[in-house]
Amino acid sequence: MELRTVWLEGNVVKLIDQRLLPGEYRVFEARDHKEVGFAIAEMVVRGAPAIGATAAYGMAQASLQGRDLEEVAAYLRATRPTGHDLFFAVDYMLEAAGKGRDLVEAAEAYAEDSLERCRAMGQHGLSLMKDGVRVLTHCNAGALATVGYGTALAPIRAAKEAGRHVFVFVDETRPRLQGAKLTAWELEREGIEHAVITDNAAGLFMARGEVDLVITGADRIAANGDVANKIGTYEKAVLAKENGIPFYVAAPVSTFDFGLASGKDIPIEERAEEEVREIGREALTPSGSPVRNPAFDVTPARYVTGYITECGILRSENLHTLQDEVVGGRGK
Amino acid sequence: MELRTVWLEGNVVKLIDQRLLPGEYRVFEARDHKEVGFAIAEMVVRGAPAIGATAAYGMAQASLQGRDLEEVAAYLRATRPTGHDLFFAVDYMLEAAGKGRDLVEAAEAYAEDSLERCRAMGQHGLSLMKDGVRVLTHCNAGALATVGYGTALAPIRAAKEAGRHVFVFVDETRPRLQGAKLTAWELEREGIEHAVITDNAAGLFMARGEVDLVITGADRIAANGDVANKIGTYEKAVLAKENGIPFYVAAPVSTFDFGLASGKDIPIEERAEEEVREIGREALTPSGSPVRNPAFDVTPARYVTGYITECGILRSENLHTLQDEVVGGRGK
Repeated sequence: MELRTVWLEGNVVKLIDQRLLPGEYRVFEARDHKEVGFAIAEMVVRGAPAIGATAAYGMAQASLQGRDLEEVAAYLRATRPTGHDLFFAVDYMLEAAGKGRDLVEAAEAYAEDSLERCRAMGQHGLSLMKDGVRVLTHCNAGALATVGYGTALAPIRAAKEAGRHVFVFVDETRPRLQGAKLTAWELEREGIEHAVITDNAAGLFMARGEVDLVITGADRIAANGDVANKIGTYEKAVLAKENGIPFYVAAPVSTFDFGLASGKDIPIEERAEEEVREIGREALTPSGSPVRNPAFDVTPARYVTGYITECGILRSENLHTLQDEVVGGRGK
Repeated sequence: MELRTVWLEGNVVKLIDQRLLPGEYRVFEARDHKEVGFAIAEMVVRGAPAIGATAAYGMAQASLQGRDLEEVAAYLRATRPTGHDLFFAVDYMLEAAGKGRDLVEAAEAYAEDSLERCRAMGQHGLSLMKDGVRVLTHCNAGALATVGYGTALAPIRAAKEAGRHVFVFVDETRPRLQGAKLTAWELEREGIEHAVITDNAAGLFMARGEVDLVITGADRIAANGDVANKIGTYEKAVLAKENGIPFYVAAPVSTFDFGLASGKDIPIEERAEEEVREIGREALTPSGSPVRNPAFDVTPARYVTGYITECGILRSENLHTLQDEVVGGRGK
């Protein structure tokens, strides 16, 4: 019953093919680092923590196949630019290799640890989830965006397990519709009450007083608390502030990039025009009209009420305490 | 070359079928008031001024067919609840009938007058359009939303005619994608530089300083200046304010409802779940996930820098001067 997004079988990295949900559940098999890279770049797997775990398994696979680990590391790092967990996981695996660790064990430890951190986020976030709370979320920061259990959805799952009633407004999240397709699928599967809305409708429900709390995930968080996340997150954060609604970001330590002072240095991936132009077989725009398709935006720290992490809920001025966790914890 | 959205031929109301654009240009023929009602309710035609003109022609058609005008008026009024021009046009035609006017002539006069008012909006709005201006617009408030020329797009057309360079960010405008499908089609057709973006990306371009001005249309404006318009307009207005970007609403006097003190009394149409669930043959959500689909939202007057009308650009505190126009002008 519990979802698992990515795992290793023999020397095959297996992933739920998220391009096919909610219509079809199929397992994608990546047989070498190029197929792992394809899975990340083409979004068979997405979500910063899930990409991190996929890269860790990809490095383990490369070691089983006797490949040059530095080369595979460079190959995987080049697949997507914005999310931080990808770089974090590749570095973790190179460090493990440098210490002579078994890389399959190291990747399994990374994934298990990642899952445990999500559960810890859920427990910390539970303090925000009163019975009857109405949460709005953007994109998918659920089990599918992680090894399992999720980041933004972790407190929602924890509340449900604690017997509290939760209602979730699910932004459909154009262009790739990860909210409509993935978050709705996860919530329906677990019997958590929800409604899918267009990204345009979030403001209306906030202004009507029907949203108590916004929780999103993150792809990269700078040292000052600026958050790169799925395009549209910034809009929801501004609207939450304007309507006096708390806005929380849920992310593990691996998503924090203490090497960046602020969000203005986070590279924003622009993806193919076709993501906006077409849905399946349907053309949405005139063929001659240009399209701009930035995949992420940056929400300045001043819009973020708090950061739900595996170490507790922090305010931006206290994020520096997480650095000890990076050095003393997983990086050890 | 110049677009005309709706017209009367004999006793057939003819409309560009906007459900088929940009893929196909086809004329829809409404042969009686029920087909006119269908065209409005099913969005063969949309946009408050275009719906108004369609209703005017529908009333003219009903008079040619010897129908009970009060009954047809009630039928047409019930097709869509939010936009004001529908009610304005029906009342105008009933008044014309009461005065013994020829209703075909009255409808033609209504449509011609509507077109002239759009051109006047363009001329007034031209003062906002510096050479090189970058405008963001939401939904379609172009020629297709009116008899021709447009409301929000009128100043853009006027600027182009005046030889100024304009760039337009076109919000795709989920769920029905009138931006991606209709606004982009109009702009491409006239060689006005533009890019289609997801509704989620508007905030990013605003925060980056790439948007100088936002102009949208309106479906109904209350006496205090609160604006009901396509869902998502409120989000763009809040984001514009947060980023210090002027936010203008372009609308003719027929869109103003001086009978409503504020926007909180404007009925907000909720449309079918299928508009969010499906695009053409593509299912976007799990079949078991509920959907909420409000078609409009209300932007409080405090977010609106000015109202571009056929009588000039007004601030909310001066909107009452337009009432004389309603009484002394078209309503005469």
